[in-house]
Amino acid sequence: MRIAIDAMGGDNAPHAHVESALSAAAEWPDTQLILVGNPEVLQPLLGKGAPSNITIVPALEIIDNTDEPVKAVRRKTDSSMVVAGRLVKEGNADAMISAGNTGALMATGLLVLGRLKGIERPGLAAIFPTLDNQGVLALDMGANMDAKPEHLLQYALMGSLYRSKVHGISKPRVGLLNVGTEAAKGNELTKVAFGLLEQAPINFIGNIEARDVLDGQCDVIICDGFSGNILLKALEGAASTIFKLLREELTASFTSKLAAAVLKPSFRRVRDRMDYNEYNGAPLLGVNGLVVKGHGSSDANAMKTAIRQTRTAIGNRLIAALADEFSGK
Amino acid sequence: MRIAIDAMGGDNAPHAHVESALSAAAEWPDTQLILVGNPEVLQPLLGKGAPSNITIVPALEIIDNTDEPVKAVRRKTDSSMVVAGRLVKEGNADAMISAGNTGALMATGLLVLGRLKGIERPGLAAIFPTLDNQGVLALDMGANMDAKPEHLLQYALMGSLYRSKVHGISKPRVGLLNVGTEAAKGNELTKVAFGLLEQAPINFIGNIEARDVLDGQCDVIICDGFSGNILLKALEGAASTIFKLLREELTASFTSKLAAAVLKPSFRRVRDRMDYNEYNGAPLLGVNGLVVKGHGSSDANAMKTAIRQTRTAIGNRLIAALADEFSGK
Repeated sequence: MRIAIDAMGGDNAPHAHVESALSAAAEWPDTQLILVGNPEVLQPLLGKGAPSNITIVPALEIIDNTDEPVKAVRRKTDSSMVVAGRLVKEGNADAMISAGNTGALMATGLLVLGRLKGIERPGLAAIFPTLDNQGVLALDMGANMDAKPEHLLQYALMGSLYRSKVHGISKPRVGLLNVGTEAAKGNELTKVAFGLLEQAPINFIGNIEARDVLDGQCDVIICDGFSGNILLKALEGAASTIFKLLREELTASFTSKLAAAVLKPSFRRVRDRMDYNEYNGAPLLGVNGLVVKGHGSSDANAMKTAIRQTRTAIGNRLIAALADEFSGK
Repeated sequence: MRIAIDAMGGDNAPHAHVESALSAAAEWPDTQLILVGNPEVLQPLLGKGAPSNITIVPALEIIDNTDEPVKAVRRKTDSSMVVAGRLVKEGNADAMISAGNTGALMATGLLVLGRLKGIERPGLAAIFPTLDNQGVLALDMGANMDAKPEHLLQYALMGSLYRSKVHGISKPRVGLLNVGTEAAKGNELTKVAFGLLEQAPINFIGNIEARDVLDGQCDVIICDGFSGNILLKALEGAASTIFKLLREELTASFTSKLAAAVLKPSFRRVRDRMDYNEYNGAPLLGVNGLVVKGHGSSDANAMKTAIRQTRTAIGNRLIAALADEFSGK
């Protein structure tokens, strides 16, 4: 299988991407890793003894986080992100991974690859850590700001298929993000979507409140892109604030510093379990090709996790399964 | 001033409410605390030496969390919550506080007290802890699920007035909860609301992302009730998950238990700074009378904080100021 990596996108590009590619190339000899970016930058990082299953495809432009997504994808046709998308589009790669500008990646999915037949709006997924360490796939995280109930239904079908194909869960439990657990709760969108989800051929377990998202009650959580983005960033923000406060308090005195030093491994484990990078590599579901988003701050380990997820998705023919599911509708 | 307390609502009713009333009565002799509930339950808790500025107003029914809000308020006319609302409505109390069923409290506001003239939809506020310890007032947390841009504008005006009247902030910084900081970001609702807020006679500082809510960049955060509820519960859920994980990890071995014992005061300080009870007592803004919501899990200290906030709001004639602001529109 062939995976194109946007080697210039993300906070730790290109080093983390080259490092993860080297590690992945060694672990999975059947996988061709295509680093897309400036060869003059990438070649020296790869070194001379680079394995034969890593190649470089040149792309001299870079889309960064300040770029306006749609404009950037239209104009920067030689950017690492767009070139990676084109490799998938033209059948020269089975998937692409990018840790770059999220909006631009969605635009790449829509403009370069296009929607899967039958899909009205693609949805961007994220995988949240959960207390039971199984993680939960949540979508949409912001691809589609004004979702309709039918879009939420399609997210539920796609999310279910992803969890069963890529994570081997037989009957993924699907929950609808809502303000209360009762069926009648919510806004106009969720009230109508609830009825559609009840009728759908999925394991719909009802509404789930934002405070229970990390508990592990669901395998898939469905929401509109606006609420999903609020959810994602609120969870991240709360975690970052608490760890900031802990650092402040635990370094306030000599005694607390000493005790905190003893507990360092425990804190690290908590941090790791809340770390989104541990579950890196969420798909943009509904586009005609496998597009995987890495967290912007992905390091080499996180990128390798994304590569692992992508390999599983390719191996289980995720895109073909999605195409089958929706083409008849 | 006279404050009616729904003595039967909330996880720690009635004990926490009686205890907080006793403490408040001692601290503020100018304040009449009216405990609304079953006298046979409340009288023994008060004891014989209860101060003269605590009175009991009988109400024999209770609205609990399983009650359907509107139905409960209509039918349970002798419930502690509805009776407290009626005391405000009929001029026998200057405010009411309840830690009970949030939906029912909103229904009490709407059905018993009615809207303020000029207000289209009341909004339920919450106060979040922030890193700078000033807290941020956010609304709407769920009173109005399908908000229109004009509702968000009214929330901004009411929230600003509350922060200046009750918290003494001269030009409260108002932010719009959104998925990005740029003006063009968001869904149809926030895009239109952004324009209205720019024109409004408030200190509008633009969009704020959910991950920055706790940073202290704003004094007021505006959102629709659905997103607000997701935000509130995601922040609560993340904090509770992290503290759960910490407890697990820090009690995993003898050494870690020992070190954690040394750090107990530090952990408590972090917990307290993230504790919503420290900022207890958020108003239902836009109803014709002062209705204050205590967190469902409020203990006696938290209830006393709510009483303190309520006293300040009464002292600064918040409702009259809101009525002035909107009556001419």
